Amino acid sequence: MTLTDVMFGDPQLSRIMGGAAQLAAMLRVEAALARAEARLGLIPAHAADRIVAAAEALTPDPAEIAEAAAAAGIPAQALVKALKALCGPEAGWAHFGATSQDVQDTSLVLQLREALEVLRARLTGVSEALASKAARYSGQPIPARTRFQIAAPTTLGAKVAVWQAPLARHLVRLGELEPRLLNVSFYGAAGTGAALAPRSAELRQAIAAELGLGAPAVPWHAARDGMVELGGWLALVTGSLGKMGLDLVLLGQSEVAEVAAGRGGGSSTMPQKSNPVSAEALVTLARLNAGDLGTLHQALIHAQERDGSALGIEWQILPGMVIRAGAALRIALDLAETLQPRRDRIEATFAADRGGMLAEAAGFALARNMPRSDALEIVGAALRAVADDPRETLAGALGHLAPGQDWEKVLDPAAQTGEAVDQARRATTGGRRP
Amino acid sequence: MTLTDVMFGDPQLSRIMGGAAQLAAMLRVEAALARAEARLGLIPAHAADRIVAAAEALTPDPAEIAEAAAAAGIPAQALVKALKALCGPEAGWAHFGATSQDVQDTSLVLQLREALEVLRARLTGVSEALASKAARYSGQPIPARTRFQIAAPTTLGAKVAVWQAPLARHLVRLGELEPRLLNVSFYGAAGTGAALAPRSAELRQAIAAELGLGAPAVPWHAARDGMVELGGWLALVTGSLGKMGLDLVLLGQSEVAEVAAGRGGGSSTMPQKSNPVSAEALVTLARLNAGDLGTLHQALIHAQERDGSALGIEWQILPGMVIRAGAALRIALDLAETLQPRRDRIEATFAADRGGMLAEAAGFALARNMPRSDALEIVGAALRAVADDPRETLAGALGHLAPGQDWEKVLDPAAQTGEAVDQARRATTGGRRP
Amino acid sequence: MTLTDVMFGDPQLSRIMGGAAQLAAMLRVEAALARAEARLGLIPAHAADRIVAAAEALTPDPAEIAEAAAAAGIPAQALVKALKALCGPEAGWAHFGATSQDVQDTSLVLQLREALEVLRARLTGVSEALASKAARYSGQPIPARTRFQIAAPTTLGAKVAVWQAPLARHLVRLGELEPRLLNVSFYGAAGTGAALAPRSAELRQAIAAELGLGAPAVPWHAARDGMVELGGWLALVTGSLGKMGLDLVLLGQSEVAEVAAGRGGGSSTMPQKSNPVSAEALVTLARLNAGDLGTLHQALIHAQERDGSALGIEWQILPGMVIRAGAALRIALDLAETLQPRRDRIEATFAADRGGMLAEAAGFALARNMPRSDALEIVGAALRAVADDPRETLAGALGHLAPGQDWEKVLDPAAQTGEAVDQARRATTGGRRP
Amino acid sequence: MTLTDVMFGDPQLSRIMGGAAQLAAMLRVEAALARAEARLGLIPAHAADRIVAAAEALTPDPAEIAEAAAAAGIPAQALVKALKALCGPEAGWAHFGATSQDVQDTSLVLQLREALEVLRARLTGVSEALASKAARYSGQPIPARTRFQIAAPTTLGAKVAVWQAPLARHLVRLGELEPRLLNVSFYGAAGTGAALAPRSAELRQAIAAELGLGAPAVPWHAARDGMVELGGWLALVTGSLGKMGLDLVLLGQSEVAEVAAGRGGGSSTMPQKSNPVSAEALVTLARLNAGDLGTLHQALIHAQERDGSALGIEWQILPGMVIRAGAALRIALDLAETLQPRRDRIEATFAADRGGMLAEAAGFALARNMPRSDALEIVGAALRAVADDPRETLAGALGHLAPGQDWEKVLDPAAQTGEAVDQARRATTGGRRP
Repeated sequence: MTLTDVMFGDPQLSRIMGGAAQLAAMLRVEAALARAEARLGLIPAHAADRIVAAAEALTPDPAEIAEAAAAAGIPAQALVKALKALCGPEAGWAHFGATSQDVQDTSLVLQLREALEVLRARLTGVSEALASKAARYSGQPIPARTRFQIAAPTTLGAKVAVWQAPLARHLVRLGELEPRLLNVSFYGAAGTGAALAPRSAELRQAIAAELGLGAPAVPWHAARDGMVELGGWLALVTGSLGKMGLDLVLLGQSEVAEVAAGRGGGSSTMPQKSNPVSAEALVTLARLNAGDLGTLHQALIHAQERDGSALGIEWQILPGMVIRAGAALRIALDLAETLQPRRDRIEATFAADRGGMLAEAAGFALARNMPRSDALEIVGAALRAVADDPRETLAGALGHLAPGQDWEKVLDPAAQTGEAVDQARRATTGGRRP
Repeated sequence: MTLTDVMFGDPQLSRIMGGAAQLAAMLRVEAALARAEARLGLIPAHAADRIVAAAEALTPDPAEIAEAAAAAGIPAQALVKALKALCGPEAGWAHFGATSQDVQDTSLVLQLREALEVLRARLTGVSEALASKAARYSGQPIPARTRFQIAAPTTLGAKVAVWQAPLARHLVRLGELEPRLLNVSFYGAAGTGAALAPRSAELRQAIAAELGLGAPAVPWHAARDGMVELGGWLALVTGSLGKMGLDLVLLGQSEVAEVAAGRGGGSSTMPQKSNPVSAEALVTLARLNAGDLGTLHQALIHAQERDGSALGIEWQILPGMVIRAGAALRIALDLAETLQPRRDRIEATFAADRGGMLAEAAGFALARNMPRSDALEIVGAALRAVADDPRETLAGALGHLAPGQDWEKVLDPAAQTGEAVDQARRATTGGRRP
Repeated sequence: MTLTDVMFGDPQLSRIMGGAAQLAAMLRVEAALARAEARLGLIPAHAADRIVAAAEALTPDPAEIAEAAAAAGIPAQALVKALKALCGPEAGWAHFGATSQDVQDTSLVLQLREALEVLRARLTGVSEALASKAARYSGQPIPARTRFQIAAPTTLGAKVAVWQAPLARHLVRLGELEPRLLNVSFYGAAGTGAALAPRSAELRQAIAAELGLGAPAVPWHAARDGMVELGGWLALVTGSLGKMGLDLVLLGQSEVAEVAAGRGGGSSTMPQKSNPVSAEALVTLARLNAGDLGTLHQALIHAQERDGSALGIEWQILPGMVIRAGAALRIALDLAETLQPRRDRIEATFAADRGGMLAEAAGFALARNMPRSDALEIVGAALRAVADDPRETLAGALGHLAPGQDWEKVLDPAAQTGEAVDQARRATTGGRRP
Repeated sequence: MTLTDVMFGDPQLSRIMGGAAQLAAMLRVEAALARAEARLGLIPAHAADRIVAAAEALTPDPAEIAEAAAAAGIPAQALVKALKALCGPEAGWAHFGATSQDVQDTSLVLQLREALEVLRARLTGVSEALASKAARYSGQPIPARTRFQIAAPTTLGAKVAVWQAPLARHLVRLGELEPRLLNVSFYGAAGTGAALAPRSAELRQAIAAELGLGAPAVPWHAARDGMVELGGWLALVTGSLGKMGLDLVLLGQSEVAEVAAGRGGGSSTMPQKSNPVSAEALVTLARLNAGDLGTLHQALIHAQERDGSALGIEWQILPGMVIRAGAALRIALDLAETLQPRRDRIEATFAADRGGMLAEAAGFALARNMPRSDALEIVGAALRAVADDPRETLAGALGHLAPGQDWEKVLDPAAQTGEAVDQARRATTGGRRP
């Protein structure tokens, strides 16, 4: 545990993905297995009762199981041993026909299902908060900046809509990947269910029904695309929030300060500073999950029917990615809810720009009445006039060079935001629409 | 160009993702833009004719455009300039209301659509070839190996089915992501379509109709989840094939040699060797795409309305990932089509194992008539007898220790493959089913 | 905390890199700062006494500081606040002229120095253990395998020497990088030491002397090559051990089993298995650190004079990399110490090969008396004879095809290991030599 | 070839690392091998003459060799075959005792040596250009910015010194790693030199002398730390330049524009823009090499005596990393040489700040005459006065609140840059000093 683990962590998701929760989930799997096997007549009913009772009574110490896992190469094994020790003469019926990996994977799926419900709720919350802000500031002019240069006017609502749109798509993606992920694993040592043949497929369905999961026929012990796809989704979520974070960092710079969000961290020595701690954290979380995803994909290259070196990559990476997605969503919600324009600073930006960012608009306005090349020449001359005289504006210069239009009105930023208002409002219609 | 670029490359996909194809796609976008604008009355019909003709006539030198792109920071700009130069007095109507990024992105989408058709066809081909082999060898016993140790019998068909199942899922994933990817980009300098307001949305739909693409309302100039999701899919494809490659490398080791596939590379100095060149290449391609995906995700953290440093990551990484997916599928098809068991070696493995991998099966067979703990004790004694006497087998030892069953028959590997045959055959029902 | 954190962790290094140790190191820095400032007359001596006493008395709760760090964006700030609260009227002299980052970085360097001493000792230990085993088995023949095919004979000692040689180089590298890493950071808010000018450089030297560190003139607040270079070293260490792990996994396969090392993990359901848990863990740790290094390098792209989003990457990644290097060295030591050949299996491999791996040697032996092309033709014929008759050996076939040499003796693997013995013994001369 | 390959590429280094150069290097290795073997009497002198002549005459088509390499799994093999075809009856003496990997690796080292000379020269050039600019602008005040907020004054020279210092360290690192990298590989099929025993070590020394390389005793066929360490160095170089690029991007923002460097790219539609194309490219190159390094480290996990899947990672990644380092240095040189402050904008920043960034300095100035807590209270009051009245400055407010000092002079940014001038000038003393 380091001193930045709270900054980049999340207590709720740490708990869901943590060792104690995994043990609980493994016991739940063993109980479901026993119940299903009893129902199918594969083990005696009284054995199942005993196993279920033992699974409910057992509260193993995560630290002890972790220690044993280091020797065994897989946590499930020590848990099974502890469970059997509680089952007395029925011990032989516990974990019957299963392999450690079955329990390991199914319990992981149970943990992930719980985590995904939390992430889905938070993602919906952030998406809705952004949609609401997009609507609220749909008409608030603000400069668009491309390649770190002031470009042309847009609205704050449209900016927020660009943050929100991918989140709505991520909700759709989540719905698509879940059926590929939320599956029971029960295939036995060689992936063939041989120990319980010919009833293994039937039993797998029964366990799946107990746990509310799917039950694919082909084993996924060694085909980990479902897990890795989830990693991709988590990194898409943090990446999209990282973009929002980076934008807020840049919008909050001392020289820009057009949008405020979150509570800035103070400086130990510079009283005037307000550091964009939360927005920076979103960037960090995004870069961390991006990198981890690249490593997680290495785990697809999984040898044979089971590969401990590849599984270890998953075990060590996936929980952290889930937690980071949770942390990013938590932070993003706070930023979304506290986001507000600083109108004085926005107006100051427009004033300081003196119309430069409306050069394109001026060109199009002129081109309605003259060849486009002539229009661009006039705009060029006007921009030079603006550059030469710090008190001149583009509207003023065009008033001289191309009289006949109310240039102040034509070049009012609010009049030159095109579809921005519509883009911003669109985000509100559900907040989930792609 | 290095000497290993053929080994890890693919000429067809290199062409589709290459500079000349990109220029052609950009010109196609400019022509579609001109046609759509003329149809909507935004530019004169004769201007559109001239632009379309110029776009068809222009064959810019990719090297020159690349040189200009280095100065401009984006390739589209120099192409637009060259196009305008061909349009004479109508030059002002070319690229009307668009920004370079619009053309850059839409042309990329056109390239990707073509690439995905090739990849989809190849993926279907590999999936079907594997499904066919799975069916053919559905009953061919072969050891399952877990954690690099012989575990228990399965069948070659079931092994192949584990390679095939993710490919079928990848085809489903491709169908899901395409609508998020295959979209026109036409939003203008600030993403608001301001230059052509209030008709920009209508125009976007018209261009999209020309090109057969979607037209989302919110700009994706700076929201790159569609592109990055594609990268994830490419890495899932190469990763799944990397697993198949690694398995074939391991199955082809001198000491195993149970499955042959592809044509081995010879050694310059060791005449007896047959190197698993193709299977190794699948592993390499998988690791390269895995790593690149991690880097590509960094590009989600995209500043403001356009960020050249983030776009550059995409530009440099995505084409290579597409090509590698194509190369991996090409190599995998050859491996799938030439795959065959070497039955003598498989039989030798079973013989050398002397029943060890059937210990679990023996335990379950015994446990039908006695407490499970007693059964496991007898199996343990039998395994020790096998270990002590190099001529003893598990069946032989159990004949002494637990007479009354035909142990040779019970422990026949072919009788202990559980659902393997069914798993293998299932792959054939369409080859596309998840 | 997950259930695999012991498997891939290390308690000693977790402690050194953990939150409590970081707090202790930060307090040590604050005390050194106070002492140095008093010595230079920059703060009153009694203030320094009070600060030093407070630093010694303070035992902040890591969880509380971590919570405060999440708000402040940097852990040092809350610690400084807690320290000042203990200093009463002298509070104003605590942390005098420093910025949070100074304390953050210098304390990190102190932690890393301690960690590197542990890692250096362990690395030396593994290197020596391997050198000893290399010497011991310098003459033990064993097949070399290239591209997963049996190639030609080498010795086990030579194999071990290939694992050992990089470790010796890593010790050299460590000595080279330490002076670039083990430096004090004391540059103040803007990196200029302005608060204490013109005595800041002198003070920096004094603090450095207190702590036994270097004191570069140019601030490294934002130039993180020292930290990232360390990450590279850690990943080189785990990567080299990952190669050893992978080799042991492959040498320990059921079908090879020529080298045993470590204690295998059992299977929950297959009593005959012995899983290469430790060797697999080395591969996992190597892949994890490899991936993390790629992410850590992103932190070099550090904005301005201090960039929270880049620092966060370091904070979250570096401790884990250190711990993984420690874990890998701990595991590798156990493997090195328990490593031993299984001579029966090695002999069986040579017997089963029937001389194939000596084809190159046969060619060279023949070429001493005839044109090389003739020699290769005879070898080819001999290999075909071996392939056709399962009882034939290369020596036997050459006895017929090229009589006149004692082929059994010429093709004795032990006679065909070239420099292997010398390579293996060389490792012992210090164990540290590159 | 894509349209951004010039932007992120480098023609000189592409040539050095390209296929034709690799073929030439391999032929050079074969010639050196033949000469050394003849000198030691291992092959006939006339055979060596013939081989050397053939190596000089041969100009193989890279595309053909690349095609053959795809089948063989290694480029060297086809080249050796082509060479032998030119040697007539002496063919058997060509490549005598070597394995393909020997030639592959030694030729790579020759290419890298040439590349490193170019990179060293460029790195020295950039370092010197930056040192010169650091000296030139050593006293030019400019705000330091921490966490994207204006912090306190520094000088432009000190900023540049922070970019330069790591480059000087990279030159030292290069000198350290070269002896570990610039080595001949000549160990034969199994790494033991068996074919030429007992003279293989002697021969290795002779080849090394021919080529000016080192000759370690233990083979590095499968111990790739030298190559991977080089990758780390390349990523450190691009990473440090990426920091400079990011700083220039941020310093060049429309709202900051305090430093100009390079020639900005124009916009296709916004005539007023000047995009920081070169600075952005540095960031992109840094992120690409960072990610590639993570993947390259996976290649350390190299199976057995030779692992084609790991070698493929190196082959595909390392040349690109070299080229990117070259591109980044080329771009950075241009930026360094054209870098200049825009003094009007810097002055405007200071004016707009109205003393806020001198709050720390004011606190220290006051604390010379009063308790630090009182000083901080007065500064706080002054900052509030500044915040309340847009015409007030910190100096003005302190004039009222704490009369008796010439606050304009005390808070002159140029008077508050501490060691900045010294840090900046230090960079010039050689430009290479760490």
